[in-house]
Amino acid sequence: MTRTVYVNGEYLPENEAKVSIFDRGFLMADGVYEVTSVLGGKLIDFDGHLKRLERSLNELDMPKPAAFDDLLEIHRKLVAENGITEGMVYLQVTRGAPDDRDFVFPDAETTEPTVVLFTQNKPGLANSPAAKTGIKVISIDDIRWGRRDIKTVQLLYPSMGKMMAKAQGCDDAWMVEDGAVTEGTSNNAYIVKDGVIITRNLSTDILHGITRAAVLRFAREAQMKVEERPFTIEEAKAADEAFVTSASTFVFPVVEVDGAAVGTGSPGPVATRLREIYLEESLKAGV
Amino acid sequence: MTRTVYVNGEYLPENEAKVSIFDRGFLMADGVYEVTSVLGGKLIDFDGHLKRLERSLNELDMPKPAAFDDLLEIHRKLVAENGITEGMVYLQVTRGAPDDRDFVFPDAETTEPTVVLFTQNKPGLANSPAAKTGIKVISIDDIRWGRRDIKTVQLLYPSMGKMMAKAQGCDDAWMVEDGAVTEGTSNNAYIVKDGVIITRNLSTDILHGITRAAVLRFAREAQMKVEERPFTIEEAKAADEAFVTSASTFVFPVVEVDGAAVGTGSPGPVATRLREIYLEESLKAGV
Repeated sequence: MTRTVYVNGEYLPENEAKVSIFDRGFLMADGVYEVTSVLGGKLIDFDGHLKRLERSLNELDMPKPAAFDDLLEIHRKLVAENGITEGMVYLQVTRGAPDDRDFVFPDAETTEPTVVLFTQNKPGLANSPAAKTGIKVISIDDIRWGRRDIKTVQLLYPSMGKMMAKAQGCDDAWMVEDGAVTEGTSNNAYIVKDGVIITRNLSTDILHGITRAAVLRFAREAQMKVEERPFTIEEAKAADEAFVTSASTFVFPVVEVDGAAVGTGSPGPVATRLREIYLEESLKAGV
Repeated sequence: MTRTVYVNGEYLPENEAKVSIFDRGFLMADGVYEVTSVLGGKLIDFDGHLKRLERSLNELDMPKPAAFDDLLEIHRKLVAENGITEGMVYLQVTRGAPDDRDFVFPDAETTEPTVVLFTQNKPGLANSPAAKTGIKVISIDDIRWGRRDIKTVQLLYPSMGKMMAKAQGCDDAWMVEDGAVTEGTSNNAYIVKDGVIITRNLSTDILHGITRAAVLRFAREAQMKVEERPFTIEEAKAADEAFVTSASTFVFPVVEVDGAAVGTGSPGPVATRLREIYLEESLKAGV
């Protein structure tokens, strides 16, 4: 079935969905994005994603697209048109397509931002097998740029990291800088030791995960102890549990780090419980 | 006049030149590029650019596009069709447009790389006023990713750097990491002190400039002393001269660094002479 996607005000069949070769998203990675999950046909944490999008735009002095206030409606229309019950909506905003390539930003008066949205249908998303078996990660050097708090489309290295993991028979990579884990290629990273959930504190070093914020809130509400600080791969290997969070995976247990089993080598109770709470609460709050 | 551009085997008017929204260049900055100058209607250092393109593709495990062997012909056709005597040809190759967005690389058997080329008409390129007046640079932190030797389209930070320079009434920014200058936002950086040309040694920290290689070769042939090593902003301020090189600027003198005049505050003899030699020799060797 052909998806209906959204490009700059138009709803189009996916094979007709195109952007100019002069789009700064294509030529200069001058764009930001968000991925919102859909469960039971509803958008999960939509407000959080919209707020982060606004922050990303501000940090890059990128104008708000005219469609900004219509984004909920556009998301909903795409979900309905494409019959998505479980899946994702991907949204990207770029600084638009000026008449020519130039390192200097185009005049925001004459160059309108590009807005693209498309859905991904993922039946069974909430019951992913990886949630039951857990995933295996390797560690790699974090050589990304310094503003990982801005959700830009500069995803080449995370993509390369995923391939490095695959080449070693693993599922994902945790990136390490100055001896400590920053995050996964497309998720935030956690360990659990002696009942304490440990995850890196927010800074420009990591993405300010929307799912991270929700999961930590639920953890604290459930009287779990949370410590926000950097941790090492050695700590991860010696931890009782490990897990990742992201908008599209929710909570995935991590059962192996660089070939070493974490804890029992099976998904642990904290990750399992947090996943349950997150799915339950998010579904209730979906829009 | 509407430019004729090249997109995946087709010559098109620029306003019809589009790529899929699923192109990995657009979604993930998974693309590399080259810019070749045109002088007297001929391509300057074309072989060097093609070799570096091949290296960039190899470093990223990106398949060579089918059009690789035709690139000279495509460049020439665009130069002719668009009547370019002085200007540039921009070339970008991405990992193509798979059916859907995924961090995992698409199967190279089924997803053909995207190839885009377009010209930029710049009459007077060889006699740019900036070559006579020199340019002013500021210093900024280098927070780019760690593989700057691969010429990827992850150009958001260099673009931001250019804007930071503009905001301070300057022309460009030199990026500084661990106390030493890496390079300019789109050029290699040099100082001259006591007759010695000093420029950062090649590594993954900087782009392996095609113009850099040619200029250093010409300098050595002219019995000038060259030292390839990192230098600081303080050294630049205290230097006799400073300059930058790139495919589109050739050699531009730098007359001010962070508000301090370099040497006399006017273009120096070394930069001026190197520009003359480069233009003379490159024109002879143009294809």
